[in-house]
Amino acid sequence: MMNSQVPEFQVFFNDHTTNDFNMLFKSLPQNRPYYAVGVPGSFYGRIFPNASIHFVHSSFSLHWLSRVPKQVVDRNSPAWNKGRIQYSNSTDEVVRAYEAQFAEDMGCFLHARAQEIVHGGLMVIITPGRPNGSSHSDSVANATLLLVGSCLMDMAKEGVLLEEKVDSFNLPMYYMSPQELEAAVEQNGFFSIERLEYLPRVPVDDTVSEKLASHLRAALEGLIKQQFGEEILDELFDRYRKKVEGQLSILDIDSGKPTHFLAALKRKAN
Amino acid sequence: MMNSQVPEFQVFFNDHTTNDFNMLFKSLPQNRPYYAVGVPGSFYGRIFPNASIHFVHSSFSLHWLSRVPKQVVDRNSPAWNKGRIQYSNSTDEVVRAYEAQFAEDMGCFLHARAQEIVHGGLMVIITPGRPNGSSHSDSVANATLLLVGSCLMDMAKEGVLLEEKVDSFNLPMYYMSPQELEAAVEQNGFFSIERLEYLPRVPVDDTVSEKLASHLRAALEGLIKQQFGEEILDELFDRYRKKVEGQLSILDIDSGKPTHFLAALKRKAN
Repeated sequence: MMNSQVPEFQVFFNDHTTNDFNMLFKSLPQNRPYYAVGVPGSFYGRIFPNASIHFVHSSFSLHWLSRVPKQVVDRNSPAWNKGRIQYSNSTDEVVRAYEAQFAEDMGCFLHARAQEIVHGGLMVIITPGRPNGSSHSDSVANATLLLVGSCLMDMAKEGVLLEEKVDSFNLPMYYMSPQELEAAVEQNGFFSIERLEYLPRVPVDDTVSEKLASHLRAALEGLIKQQFGEEILDELFDRYRKKVEGQLSILDIDSGKPTHFLAALKRKAN
Repeated sequence: MMNSQVPEFQVFFNDHTTNDFNMLFKSLPQNRPYYAVGVPGSFYGRIFPNASIHFVHSSFSLHWLSRVPKQVVDRNSPAWNKGRIQYSNSTDEVVRAYEAQFAEDMGCFLHARAQEIVHGGLMVIITPGRPNGSSHSDSVANATLLLVGSCLMDMAKEGVLLEEKVDSFNLPMYYMSPQELEAAVEQNGFFSIERLEYLPRVPVDDTVSEKLASHLRAALEGLIKQQFGEEILDELFDRYRKKVEGQLSILDIDSGKPTHFLAALKRKAN
């Protein structure tokens, strides 16, 4: 850089076009030591020019798929996911449909970033996931989502909402393992893995059920509102909180089983 | 660029942090042939890293000053602008305060862009302004603002709003001449002027007073609401429309006197 020892930083904040960028911009400090810009668009496609980015940080985002796999909402498909809102504890067909969607999306993500990041540039990913060697339904993240589905089915059975609505509702979320990330990186071919490690679990206290309910509500209420209407939200997450309280074991708090991991990738100078 | 003949384009849309960037992003075409980003912050300061921009287009923005000159709202200053909302038809002190604010702001604008634009890069400015050799109060843009002030004073005299509120209200707007721009560019020293020309006037029809009223309302209602409250807006711009209708001569429609100009500047390779 021209007149200083410290390089200048330009930080591009990316999210969906429908994200509230105004809120983001207002919340940035006024005298920030970097240039800030907002980038609307899905990170599963290209969002930056070729070789224009030195460092990418993907934070708690890659468990969101680009979409719900088509088959799982198709009544005539063997992968129709009746009575569930996600793939854990579901049929093999549903699991495979989700796995395929993840593999496709991760391929797109790495392909786009490989073009955008300069040779030698870095990408650090922090994502919720499941440990290597554990099944989908064993993972804590999936278990917490499973309970949301089970609350919705309870409400359907009590007539609070239509069971058909649950059948046609699926979450576009997938919790990868480090091995799945490694396989995707290998297949892409443009990155080396510099680090890959589990992150320590956040300590919990006796407000864990409340925190989890409000965390999941923040993440999911947009989608749930769209499908079931705003009026069910309070009841759903109140049921959810109580259900978690009664089944704290599903959180596997004392097992030390990791729930998040970090990967540092380097763009090869091919 | 790597795989194509046509270079890639990344377009940075800049506006104040309080601008509605969500509206902007939603209004962009989905399959746009460029990468779009939003840049929050005043263009009177630095908004981009050094030498990172190839082409700047400033469109209908540079008549907005960074602020109202302090003296004109200070009761104890000789430049206190009592009973007016702008500098045209005002005292020499007020005019000089606005001129000084413009010179300072334009200096900041050129200084910032000179650092951000690559050597040889271009900047095209389109701005409302006044022709060389015409006085401030002769310019059509100032005449149209003068009428807004006169409507506000009418309303104050009729008790619809407080005269003090008019006294303490001033518009942070200034209409430069091409010569003033040339002087600022010369003083800055980092740009050459490649083109400088008046733009043809937009043809008017018999809805001109209505269009002008709605145009000015779009531009000013934020500021006016802040000072006088939302409830005066309808009445103010209705009075305005009628006043323009009665004084169409102030628009100088047939004189051909230019109201806008274009400047193309090139960043020197100093």
